Amino acid sequence: MITKEQVLGILKNYDLESLTIATVCSHSSLQIFDGARKEGFKTLGICVGKPPKFYEAFPKAKPDEFLVVENYGDIMNKAKELREKNTIIIPHGSFVAYLGSDKFMELEVPTFGNRGVLEWESDRDKEREWLLGAGIHMPKKISDPKDINGPVMVKYDGARGGKGFFVAKTYEEFQKLIDPTQKYTIQEFITGTRYYLHYFYSPLHEDGYTLSKGNLQLLSMDRRVESNADEIFRLGSPRELLKAGIRPSYVVTGNVPLVARESLLPLIFSLGERVVEESLGLFGGMIGPFCLETVFTDELEIKVFEISARIVAGTNIYPTGSPYSDFIQEDLSTGRRLAQEIKYAVETGSLDEIIS
Amino acid sequence: MITKEQVLGILKNYDLESLTIATVCSHSSLQIFDGARKEGFKTLGICVGKPPKFYEAFPKAKPDEFLVVENYGDIMNKAKELREKNTIIIPHGSFVAYLGSDKFMELEVPTFGNRGVLEWESDRDKEREWLLGAGIHMPKKISDPKDINGPVMVKYDGARGGKGFFVAKTYEEFQKLIDPTQKYTIQEFITGTRYYLHYFYSPLHEDGYTLSKGNLQLLSMDRRVESNADEIFRLGSPRELLKAGIRPSYVVTGNVPLVARESLLPLIFSLGERVVEESLGLFGGMIGPFCLETVFTDELEIKVFEISARIVAGTNIYPTGSPYSDFIQEDLSTGRRLAQEIKYAVETGSLDEIIS
Amino acid sequence: MITKEQVLGILKNYDLESLTIATVCSHSSLQIFDGARKEGFKTLGICVGKPPKFYEAFPKAKPDEFLVVENYGDIMNKAKELREKNTIIIPHGSFVAYLGSDKFMELEVPTFGNRGVLEWESDRDKEREWLLGAGIHMPKKISDPKDINGPVMVKYDGARGGKGFFVAKTYEEFQKLIDPTQKYTIQEFITGTRYYLHYFYSPLHEDGYTLSKGNLQLLSMDRRVESNADEIFRLGSPRELLKAGIRPSYVVTGNVPLVARESLLPLIFSLGERVVEESLGLFGGMIGPFCLETVFTDELEIKVFEISARIVAGTNIYPTGSPYSDFIQEDLSTGRRLAQEIKYAVETGSLDEIIS
Repeated sequence: MITKEQVLGILKNYDLESLTIATVCSHSSLQIFDGARKEGFKTLGICVGKPPKFYEAFPKAKPDEFLVVENYGDIMNKAKELREKNTIIIPHGSFVAYLGSDKFMELEVPTFGNRGVLEWESDRDKEREWLLGAGIHMPKKISDPKDINGPVMVKYDGARGGKGFFVAKTYEEFQKLIDPTQKYTIQEFITGTRYYLHYFYSPLHEDGYTLSKGNLQLLSMDRRVESNADEIFRLGSPRELLKAGIRPSYVVTGNVPLVARESLLPLIFSLGERVVEESLGLFGGMIGPFCLETVFTDELEIKVFEISARIVAGTNIYPTGSPYSDFIQEDLSTGRRLAQEIKYAVETGSLDEIIS
Repeated sequence: MITKEQVLGILKNYDLESLTIATVCSHSSLQIFDGARKEGFKTLGICVGKPPKFYEAFPKAKPDEFLVVENYGDIMNKAKELREKNTIIIPHGSFVAYLGSDKFMELEVPTFGNRGVLEWESDRDKEREWLLGAGIHMPKKISDPKDINGPVMVKYDGARGGKGFFVAKTYEEFQKLIDPTQKYTIQEFITGTRYYLHYFYSPLHEDGYTLSKGNLQLLSMDRRVESNADEIFRLGSPRELLKAGIRPSYVVTGNVPLVARESLLPLIFSLGERVVEESLGLFGGMIGPFCLETVFTDELEIKVFEISARIVAGTNIYPTGSPYSDFIQEDLSTGRRLAQEIKYAVETGSLDEIIS
Repeated sequence: MITKEQVLGILKNYDLESLTIATVCSHSSLQIFDGARKEGFKTLGICVGKPPKFYEAFPKAKPDEFLVVENYGDIMNKAKELREKNTIIIPHGSFVAYLGSDKFMELEVPTFGNRGVLEWESDRDKEREWLLGAGIHMPKKISDPKDINGPVMVKYDGARGGKGFFVAKTYEEFQKLIDPTQKYTIQEFITGTRYYLHYFYSPLHEDGYTLSKGNLQLLSMDRRVESNADEIFRLGSPRELLKAGIRPSYVVTGNVPLVARESLLPLIFSLGERVVEESLGLFGGMIGPFCLETVFTDELEIKVFEISARIVAGTNIYPTGSPYSDFIQEDLSTGRRLAQEIKYAVETGSLDEIIS
């Protein structure tokens, strides 16, 4: 694993007036490139094989240049080239998934945020320790499937995109549906409506909604569109479908915009605040964009079932502003907010605080 | 109850060049403050205990000052202070609910709109008289639960947020689910899709979509997100869930944006028009923003199940414009439209027509 | 049927500096008029009886003038008048439906796009030949209802708006529900989530996402709101409801915005590309806006169940830009993009390539 000292050593040789913002050509790259350009940065898209043609259709979001690799692992061999371009990597979810956690931790290129968060985010037990430590309400965890006595959601570890997740109401159902070759977690199924809350934590700013260090913003929110769970009711209830051999699935295909009751904003900010404060104590802080994946119950409680400690694809709905970021600044996407943070850090000589 | 004469008397002492727009810090306050500032007004947020911290995260929507009260009833004691600041109150739904209808009617501070609407809006029988008088199609009302012979929605009076509402298909189901200690209304359940239509009625303008007096605008529309009814299908059908002791609930947690078939716009405007015209005859008119809560059936009929005679939280989706208001003017929220109306009234010397 | 030569003959007499953009006052006319005005065109709304009053409420989208006809067929008698105003018609779905296909093919007014597409779009067999020829994955077609052995969607020909469509799982169900007096098509029911993808094909541009001729854009996407299918789960599962005599229906009442996983963009563009390329070979090309109506499965495959070869009403969500068009240009609706194409064609002397 690359150390902070090593990264700071690399940064010393950077021309900070000529930084390049880079990421892998997927996930939320359009807004990252668009936002970086709006803040005056050069942009670089990392892709396998050849540049994806679709960027040609989006001139404002097309990176200035592409770095073509043979496979994602090959990024490791391009570190020198990236450093020569004074590159700072924005690690979105697909970046980390495609490269692999181990390699990501070793990549010898300065990376936005605290790479140490990955250890806490990718392991469901440590994630739970973090969130419960922050006083967050989570769905109950059921350790022994025999203890299932009400609806539960079963998730496989590392299954990004929700592939294979299922709902069961009894141990018998669980047994029928489980893939025993995979590591799984069983969570109480919370009835309510899903909200994915997009925050931004800056350790640098001393104004705004201040925390013990830095400030917190709420940039937007979305609801994920899950295939086929979100439309399968058109065919029948889960029980009816199971008889016909059809199972609901929870693969994310996209996102819809929404807003929350304004009276819930104090609670929403409090959740974000506690998660950040706890992260400062646990591992030096989660920096930049993060997302709490929640259910709002009919008691107007918010249960958090997961955290994503980086930019989430749900922010793609808002490339030029959201119903929340519009109260901060015109034309503010999460991608642009990321670029602003880097720009501000350069201007205030504090890049070392937001890079690892 | 404060009389119109008393309010006009107060207004005489106001410095109309230095008005303050005030509301309670909840519901739709962000867009109200943001919109008022865009139109050049000072803004004041009324809050209990201390200023909510979340405004710090939304600098464009943070009121210029806060008026801290011990409890919402305490607002009554602050009337003098509010008048000294030349305050006009924007009464959103939570403002009225938190303060209480009786106190709201007595509050000695000029208030946007016609307070007299409250009597017609808050009582389901009078609301029904108003809407049916306007020739609006409403779900049938079932007076005697024994007459239930198809799906019905049961609503409790004054239950803002949908708490406790339920669907029943038979008298037996009704009996099982009813809370007999509360006053309730039984409405036919209309199958279709829900649309919440956000209008703005101005008695002052003589251009645009004109009515017998003033004009009508359609600013936006939304669909409410109801917890847990909107996602509970993932667990099972209502009947299956009832066996498991799980009941659907209809608590509003937020809102999603949508648009209606353009061919329905003539009908949509006609509904708004008739409701306003009827209100002019019944109680001198409903002024400013209002919302028809509707179901669009598969016959492309629009059934109205409720009216909100003030700004609704669904407009929070659109702080810088909606797919409808974008055809009126750039950057037009309902909050801003409210401020424009006050500004226009000051300019044309007709504040007395929109204040009570 | 009017020939290309005749249309070009008409164009020769046009004052290209003073074109009028016209369409029928419905469907997507607000953004068409608004977009045309933004590009400097005069606008004309065709309506029956009298000008719809609702345009008065949307000053930016109100056409400069109205052409009042007695009935839509009467448009045929107004061709001379329209030509004298140097009119180019934008044929949205309601325009074609109200006028009738036969008359539309004969209308002696220059029309945006290739009228020849109608033959391929309106006949489900030819549509299927086109899409399968393009290598698009479609739901399987079941020719004999006796072969139904899993969920299917049954659609009536020409039934715009989804009226009467139904889902069946067995031949018995099919028999119960079918209206034998109408021509129908039976398609495999694909479980997943619906996305309606809004493309724009220009034969004129040589930059951007280039095809063998011209370029392709993705302007936005939506999900249709279908009454009552999208909310009927609140009452019961389809099977439970059928017992109670309540049938799901699929009438489009409006649209909600959404975005797709960014990693699906290469596939999304590839689908659009193949459909256009195939159209160039089959009938000289589908020009301008079109929509692929799709289901995203949990395998992240995209199945196309229908194509609309003109502007769709789902684009009404985005009169001032979408999460996709915002990466092309500020304030870009499909209506405005249409006007830009005409403007560019005039400037480059290539109007003959986009008109028929």
